[in-house]
Amino acid sequence: MTQETPSQPKLPPTSAIDRVTKAKFDNWFEYPVRVQPHHTDYGGIVWHGTYVSWMEEARVECLRSIGIDFADLVALGCDLPVVELSVRYHRSLQLGMMAIVKTRMLEVTGVRMNWEYKIVSTDEQELYITAQVTLVALDRERNKIMRQLPPAVKDALAKISASNK
Amino acid sequence: MTQETPSQPKLPPTSAIDRVTKAKFDNWFEYPVRVQPHHTDYGGIVWHGTYVSWMEEARVECLRSIGIDFADLVALGCDLPVVELSVRYHRSLQLGMMAIVKTRMLEVTGVRMNWEYKIVSTDEQELYITAQVTLVALDRERNKIMRQLPPAVKDALAKISASNK
Amino acid sequence: MTQETPSQPKLPPTSAIDRVTKAKFDNWFEYPVRVQPHHTDYGGIVWHGTYVSWMEEARVECLRSIGIDFADLVALGCDLPVVELSVRYHRSLQLGMMAIVKTRMLEVTGVRMNWEYKIVSTDEQELYITAQVTLVALDRERNKIMRQLPPAVKDALAKISASNK
Amino acid sequence: MTQETPSQPKLPPTSAIDRVTKAKFDNWFEYPVRVQPHHTDYGGIVWHGTYVSWMEEARVECLRSIGIDFADLVALGCDLPVVELSVRYHRSLQLGMMAIVKTRMLEVTGVRMNWEYKIVSTDEQELYITAQVTLVALDRERNKIMRQLPPAVKDALAKISASNK
Repeated sequence: MTQETPSQPKLPPTSAIDRVTKAKFDNWFEYPVRVQPHHTDYGGIVWHGTYVSWMEEARVECLRSIGIDFADLVALGCDLPVVELSVRYHRSLQLGMMAIVKTRMLEVTGVRMNWEYKIVSTDEQELYITAQVTLVALDRERNKIMRQLPPAVKDALAKISASNK
Repeated sequence: MTQETPSQPKLPPTSAIDRVTKAKFDNWFEYPVRVQPHHTDYGGIVWHGTYVSWMEEARVECLRSIGIDFADLVALGCDLPVVELSVRYHRSLQLGMMAIVKTRMLEVTGVRMNWEYKIVSTDEQELYITAQVTLVALDRERNKIMRQLPPAVKDALAKISASNK
Repeated sequence: MTQETPSQPKLPPTSAIDRVTKAKFDNWFEYPVRVQPHHTDYGGIVWHGTYVSWMEEARVECLRSIGIDFADLVALGCDLPVVELSVRYHRSLQLGMMAIVKTRMLEVTGVRMNWEYKIVSTDEQELYITAQVTLVALDRERNKIMRQLPPAVKDALAKISASNK
Repeated sequence: MTQETPSQPKLPPTSAIDRVTKAKFDNWFEYPVRVQPHHTDYGGIVWHGTYVSWMEEARVECLRSIGIDFADLVALGCDLPVVELSVRYHRSLQLGMMAIVKTRMLEVTGVRMNWEYKIVSTDEQELYITAQVTLVALDRERNKIMRQLPPAVKDALAKISASNK
């Protein structure tokens, strides 16, 4: 992965950005989780890195829900590595508790996808985590950022974008 | 952990902030790591959540280097949970590679500690990760943010602050 | 945890073993899993330690299905640490695949519970993993193996044992 | 990984086993570890799956100490997946404690390597874990067990075997 090194342009030139893939998505995807022993640390609460796994799972399942099978994408030579991650920890979750990982794509600009997260209690009364994650589309073989999203991804996003109007 | 909920003040009032613990630290602490199989994912590179573990290890060992044993602190009733985390992924690390996790406290304001990170190649020519982490001091029994840092921590920080002048 | 040290008896004397809790359980509990990116390693397959997490999750959910809430048990002062684990890896699972973790208690003898595992494809045609795990009931405060199972556990097991006849 | 399926022989015929690689190794390799927060669970002790990571790290570093770079081996098309694992948990390790992971190859028979483990206190007075792990050499491209070990591995093992006499 050689993206974002000084000697290389981080992102393709603006002209390469396909208008179709610049979209906003309104609906939250919900992914339920349960705190298992291996998620916790000495404090009896979820270890702060565990949330990164949960957010990844929610993202993969959200993509599946709109017709994008992440394993297929990888097999076709496209990866979606995380290039930025920020998390705010508001409240902690304890062993045995359930929560909902809520996620949505904030926007897709060219090959860059911004995802927003909230982790809340099942009754949505407690807020545990807020977070943002940015992915880029990477050509696995050439190990370079793609100039545009793979067709399968663009088509899926176009459909959602249309249905959101 | 009930910090940062709407019904509670996030941080103690300014008057409670001890001047002694408002300090800047110039020196980077260096913590070497090696990419082991369990750190990697299907891409043959370090999984993006693995860096969170490495940053925690570097932080604990940095505290040890200035005389603060984290396990002792926890045994005495003080925890230092992460309340904010942000990471930028510049380049990826592959199976078998070595790297240096560099960390330093950017500033300590009251019970809030800001840490800065860089993960670089052993010759410091490649930059893999930049990150920031914020901790707060938490009273484990009352599950509340402390009004000031425990004496052991304040003393250790005062010494470093003095030696940095 | 001080069990199994030379200076201490590993298990309570036979006379302390409650007959009620010596039981066999015939039915497999099924816990579905999906291979997410963080479960994989450089080989594109599930990292061999990931299965230990899945087996723990299946065990906790199996206990829940028979009325034993593991987090409640821990809050009441009883832990169920793993004292023995053995795994045979028959076939590997790849990114995106689904599988079923099948588990059942083989037998409960005193405070010792033996669990059997099979991880199979959703159509049960492929066998990925076979495993066995042994737990003991531990008094968390005294950090000693209990002389008998807590009443809540015994009652739940007695009910299943009866319904298995 | 298609080893150990009914339709395939698990291991190459005896005639394919190279005498040179049937060896016993007497010396323990020592790999020190420190219990970091992310290694622990709600009990304040090391989570039982964490030891699997430590054992993998010790194995990779032991191979490096005898001249086998695991990442190179993988790049050359040979993997060494775990096909059997068994662990006995004698005592638990707590946050902040140090320990030594001791490992040695028990024997190498054909493409099958048996490793023995002990995890002990730094003064060797406490025994935490005993374990055994079996690896096989796998041709990554064909996804089949190799008929013999790669030359680099055989040469390294022959040297050690000779120096053990």
